[in-house]
Amino acid sequence: MGSNLARNLASREGNTVAIYNRSHERTDLLVSEHPEAGFVPSTTIEEFAASLSKPRTAIIMVQAGAGTDAVIDQLAAVFEPGDIIVDGGNALFTDTIRREKALREKNLNFVGAGISGGEEGALKGPSIMPGGSVEAYATLGPILESIAAVVDGVPCVTHVGTDGAGHFVKMIHNGIEYADMQLIAEAYDLLRNVSGHSPAAIAEVFTEWNSGDLESYLIEITAEVLKQVDAKTGKPFVDIVLDQAGSKGTGVWTVQNALDLGVPVGGIAEAVFARAVSSHPDQRAAVQKSIDARPEIAVIGEGTAFEDDVRAALYASKVVAYAQGFDAIIAGAVKYDWNIDKGAIATIWRGGCIIRAQFLNRIVEAYANDPALPTLLVDPYFANAVKEGEAAWRRVVSTAALSGIPVPGFGSALSYYDSLASKRLPAALVQGQRDFFGAHTYQRVDAEGTFHTLWSGDRTEIESAGSSH
Amino acid sequence: MGSNLARNLASREGNTVAIYNRSHERTDLLVSEHPEAGFVPSTTIEEFAASLSKPRTAIIMVQAGAGTDAVIDQLAAVFEPGDIIVDGGNALFTDTIRREKALREKNLNFVGAGISGGEEGALKGPSIMPGGSVEAYATLGPILESIAAVVDGVPCVTHVGTDGAGHFVKMIHNGIEYADMQLIAEAYDLLRNVSGHSPAAIAEVFTEWNSGDLESYLIEITAEVLKQVDAKTGKPFVDIVLDQAGSKGTGVWTVQNALDLGVPVGGIAEAVFARAVSSHPDQRAAVQKSIDARPEIAVIGEGTAFEDDVRAALYASKVVAYAQGFDAIIAGAVKYDWNIDKGAIATIWRGGCIIRAQFLNRIVEAYANDPALPTLLVDPYFANAVKEGEAAWRRVVSTAALSGIPVPGFGSALSYYDSLASKRLPAALVQGQRDFFGAHTYQRVDAEGTFHTLWSGDRTEIESAGSSH
Repeated sequence: MGSNLARNLASREGNTVAIYNRSHERTDLLVSEHPEAGFVPSTTIEEFAASLSKPRTAIIMVQAGAGTDAVIDQLAAVFEPGDIIVDGGNALFTDTIRREKALREKNLNFVGAGISGGEEGALKGPSIMPGGSVEAYATLGPILESIAAVVDGVPCVTHVGTDGAGHFVKMIHNGIEYADMQLIAEAYDLLRNVSGHSPAAIAEVFTEWNSGDLESYLIEITAEVLKQVDAKTGKPFVDIVLDQAGSKGTGVWTVQNALDLGVPVGGIAEAVFARAVSSHPDQRAAVQKSIDARPEIAVIGEGTAFEDDVRAALYASKVVAYAQGFDAIIAGAVKYDWNIDKGAIATIWRGGCIIRAQFLNRIVEAYANDPALPTLLVDPYFANAVKEGEAAWRRVVSTAALSGIPVPGFGSALSYYDSLASKRLPAALVQGQRDFFGAHTYQRVDAEGTFHTLWSGDRTEIESAGSSH
Repeated sequence: MGSNLARNLASREGNTVAIYNRSHERTDLLVSEHPEAGFVPSTTIEEFAASLSKPRTAIIMVQAGAGTDAVIDQLAAVFEPGDIIVDGGNALFTDTIRREKALREKNLNFVGAGISGGEEGALKGPSIMPGGSVEAYATLGPILESIAAVVDGVPCVTHVGTDGAGHFVKMIHNGIEYADMQLIAEAYDLLRNVSGHSPAAIAEVFTEWNSGDLESYLIEITAEVLKQVDAKTGKPFVDIVLDQAGSKGTGVWTVQNALDLGVPVGGIAEAVFARAVSSHPDQRAAVQKSIDARPEIAVIGEGTAFEDDVRAALYASKVVAYAQGFDAIIAGAVKYDWNIDKGAIATIWRGGCIIRAQFLNRIVEAYANDPALPTLLVDPYFANAVKEGEAAWRRVVSTAALSGIPVPGFGSALSYYDSLASKRLPAALVQGQRDFFGAHTYQRVDAEGTFHTLWSGDRTEIESAGSSH
């Protein structure tokens, strides 16, 4: 990804790009393979620093972790006050906060920048989520704008916020990506097993969906993957791939941090867990061996087109996943004191990145209409979209439950929506249980204060100084 | 909880208990209120240490966090090599590992001991989960055995494993407790809204369930809570409690650590998220305002007794939650190098703690029959229980989806089961997507090795040196 990003940078007018790698063979190879780029190679970090105009700007592209610290130390030793060090890897945002603070004390600018788009995005135009100081962005912004994807004339890069804000938002982007992929996978699974469609037929369905509300890069490539035929066996490609999904950690981080922030992100969590379940072949084999029959396929809602139902369920569940992701961004901004423009985030996700979609324009509009929107689900456009798809969404989750098809994403999203929509939740019973066994106290619907019932005494209620949370 | 534990200790033959509090007024009050305990009060930590027989054993009962480190430092300053310091709070197990290591270097024994049972359990007999060294347990074990709950003549305490093993297992205990409470709350919600029962009528249902497979402390106290009538209003108690559930952090820790371990614990995560959703009244109010109608109540499965269906769904979902919890224990034991006896854990949870239940005897038996059981779901007893309840479980999740009743716990558990039971998962499609946009590679069902398709090239497959995970 680093070499593609360098080539992208070099291809834009006004940019000259210096290259430094730990192994100078890699540098030589890149320079010889891409003479058009006009790369300035360096064999030492000192030479690299000397070749840059001031203020210097270096973009680190290494595997996130201890390697990043090592390269930062190397650069910090040769850079001067006012220079800029950018980490373009998938660093954990708390590491970025730590590194920014340490380098600031040396008067160096450190910018953690999330970059999404994969290999191809890096070359042709990614979505870039830089954090760091406003001062650093004044120099860095135009450089990043020159290489970012462009949608409707707007480059897919913005100054997300200070210190770790960029990597935080990139983390949430990836969490949403997990959810989006899982929901698409569930839609495929339902069309395969309930509708009985072949992968090729499902590819056509996805291609059609890609011309409507669901238009997105992930839907588009899903159709491409489903169209693919394995050359060795003549079978659909998807049938020869081992069904154990891997992961790289940002999904896990998203859920762990949302838990710290008290933000429910069931859609993302279930997507992460679905990959984990798939990667336990021993448990899967054991359970499959222990059962003698699977349920028959049932379809709830006679006369309805199941395909349309699945499309509606996918869209409604996707709205929930994005609503949860933006809730996490809002809560993170409060906790870490970032001034994050939600609309600007949706804007820069419209191109370059994996979750790029027309859909994001609706989110831009939602936050433009009401920057203090309590949840995307109440924006009039999304509220209406969910309302129109609601009955179909319910039929799909019901059909899946009766038919034995796992829908952790669709199901979790629907339960989340129903939790918000229910006038009363059984959380009241949970508070009663907690007060019973742990004297955790509770609040009343009809009075201020915190109360406790003397459960092991005469069961009268007393007012309590404690807190119910 | 500290004073109750001290009274419990003092009440057992052969024990004399010394007391030290930061505020000696608290010590004086405890001593004067409980002359029968024969407490030996101390006003200084030196006096406290001097009053103990050797090897000294001190049990710290303070709010987990920095306070624990402060008390440990105080004790470490006056204790001698071979003495034992026990932390009976809900410490994060990684803190316990750190503390144990630091004190071991001073030749002091540090034991992190999870204690469950609330105020009453502490007084009458809790379930105790001590970690620390085998040597420390030789002294400490008999003391803890004297105060623990006893079931079938067996005290509810065992040496869980070294260093942080005890607090780790207590954390998982609490995570399971979250899931168990959420599942009970969903069952209540369904009986309330689908069956139309009053809280008092549901209390009777729970009381009946408490004489069968579901027999447990949580079911028992749920009936008590639902029976309760609010003295001020004459309404059911559960209806006057604000429906916003609080939490103390161990549920969050369980999910965060399971994510690190790669263990899917959707049942626990959804329970934690359900409390979080309930505690966002702004979002709930906004969504409720934005919708004009809720779905009608639908019941899937004419002629079936819905109550029985809910009971079966609750039991099957509970089996899943415990299976996930034990998976996390097994994975934690591998990662942190603990030799944990799963059957012994189930044994000590049979009494004293919040999740105590007859049910745990079935888990003891399952691991006795096969210590290497890949998941509790394939133990013959549990496999049969799930099989018997499966159709009902499906009807309940389906009914809830159609009726607008949130069942994040039931639904997640069913999808987890169906994921394990499905011969093919759409994880294959996810791997295809990942290979398409990020060249993450994939494995094949019919060949060894790791592969990549040249998606942006001629779409042929190449063998790759990389890893798909």
